[in-house]
Amino acid sequence: MAPETHTDKVYEAELARLRERLLEMGGLVEAAIAAAVRAIMERDTPLAEKVISSDREVNRAEVEIDDMCRRLLALRQPAASDLRFITTALKIVTDLERMGDLAVNVAERAIDLTQSAPLRPFHDLTELADLSASQLGKALDAFVERNVEKAEEVIHGDDLLDAIYHRLFGDLLTYMMEDSRVVRRGTNTMFAAKQLERFGDHATNVAEMVVYMVRGTDVRHPHSRGADPAPVHDA
Amino acid sequence: MAPETHTDKVYEAELARLRERLLEMGGLVEAAIAAAVRAIMERDTPLAEKVISSDREVNRAEVEIDDMCRRLLALRQPAASDLRFITTALKIVTDLERMGDLAVNVAERAIDLTQSAPLRPFHDLTELADLSASQLGKALDAFVERNVEKAEEVIHGDDLLDAIYHRLFGDLLTYMMEDSRVVRRGTNTMFAAKQLERFGDHATNVAEMVVYMVRGTDVRHPHSRGADPAPVHDA
Repeated sequence: MAPETHTDKVYEAELARLRERLLEMGGLVEAAIAAAVRAIMERDTPLAEKVISSDREVNRAEVEIDDMCRRLLALRQPAASDLRFITTALKIVTDLERMGDLAVNVAERAIDLTQSAPLRPFHDLTELADLSASQLGKALDAFVERNVEKAEEVIHGDDLLDAIYHRLFGDLLTYMMEDSRVVRRGTNTMFAAKQLERFGDHATNVAEMVVYMVRGTDVRHPHSRGADPAPVHDA
Repeated sequence: MAPETHTDKVYEAELARLRERLLEMGGLVEAAIAAAVRAIMERDTPLAEKVISSDREVNRAEVEIDDMCRRLLALRQPAASDLRFITTALKIVTDLERMGDLAVNVAERAIDLTQSAPLRPFHDLTELADLSASQLGKALDAFVERNVEKAEEVIHGDDLLDAIYHRLFGDLLTYMMEDSRVVRRGTNTMFAAKQLERFGDHATNVAEMVVYMVRGTDVRHPHSRGADPAPVHDA
């Protein structure tokens, strides 16, 4: 669905700037999660610390974009699809800020994990991280393009992300049950994985909001989001 | 800080209705998390199933409140503090919907946990649940009253909630390291606790948005939210 066209060039430029800033903020968050996982893989404490300090920039972007949205609402009195676009942007920016926090949490785990021997082969979180970051990129593209098909790809992509997370979770659990000396490291790794899965959930939230924004129908499936692995029972 | 006064009685009534619906939605979510934890404690599968099916009502409330906000923005063209109030409501409703999802996740854990023997004394999640629910109630009161002091109480209350969660997490970890037969049940309980802690984080998010709404300054402390327990290391 194409955005409305406006005779007012200044208004057009303001909307374009909002889109651009949201994509930039998304780029910051994508870079942060990728770096946080690289810090785990390469046991790189300075890199983890860089992720933690760079979160300030994400927070500044949130405040700025929030203000842009409120100013547009107050001064331009948008209607119809622009109103939906701006109110959705207001919600998306909150998701992006929280994704930034998740990257910080992963970076903090990275610092913890460098203090003990690596938990091979289960500390490989790259696949989960790559997929989560690509889900975010695609969701934001869907938003600025108002592209429902792309948003739906993200929503379906979450199943793969969940599957990878659940497999890793199961492997870690088995490992921990076999060798109690790895329980702590295993739990740390589990929680890092859990943050990546939550990161992916936020991307799905963004995609669902895009579908709602464009179609006006609610496609959200609460039960498929944020759920932990399938029931497991002790012997 | 008192809300603006309006000469337009209909507009006043619409704003009052928005406040009322948000509190009602909050009440639904509070009841859901309390029931989900009761289902774990009392090993009550039908109660857990009731929580899962009642989430539809939470989702309907979200769509309705979203629409109320958009209608107010489009038709009333609010400025200043009303604009802030309505745009904050748009964000809060998303937090409430996700809190409903967390209650569903806890209810799903409750069903899983009834299928094996209880993990005494570590399955007591009541304290965490009570505190999370009371944090939400207080945060929503702060929102409708535009009460910064109450919001700040919620923000500080999150430290207690985190402390309870971390203690439970540590106890479970020790238990699991001592007896590998409880690793699976312990992990299930850990994740239920984690959902409760996330529930509390959403209450803190709401409180932070209230401070931002009223004062116009950002008090958000990303590092204190959503973090997992302090670093633990294998021997």
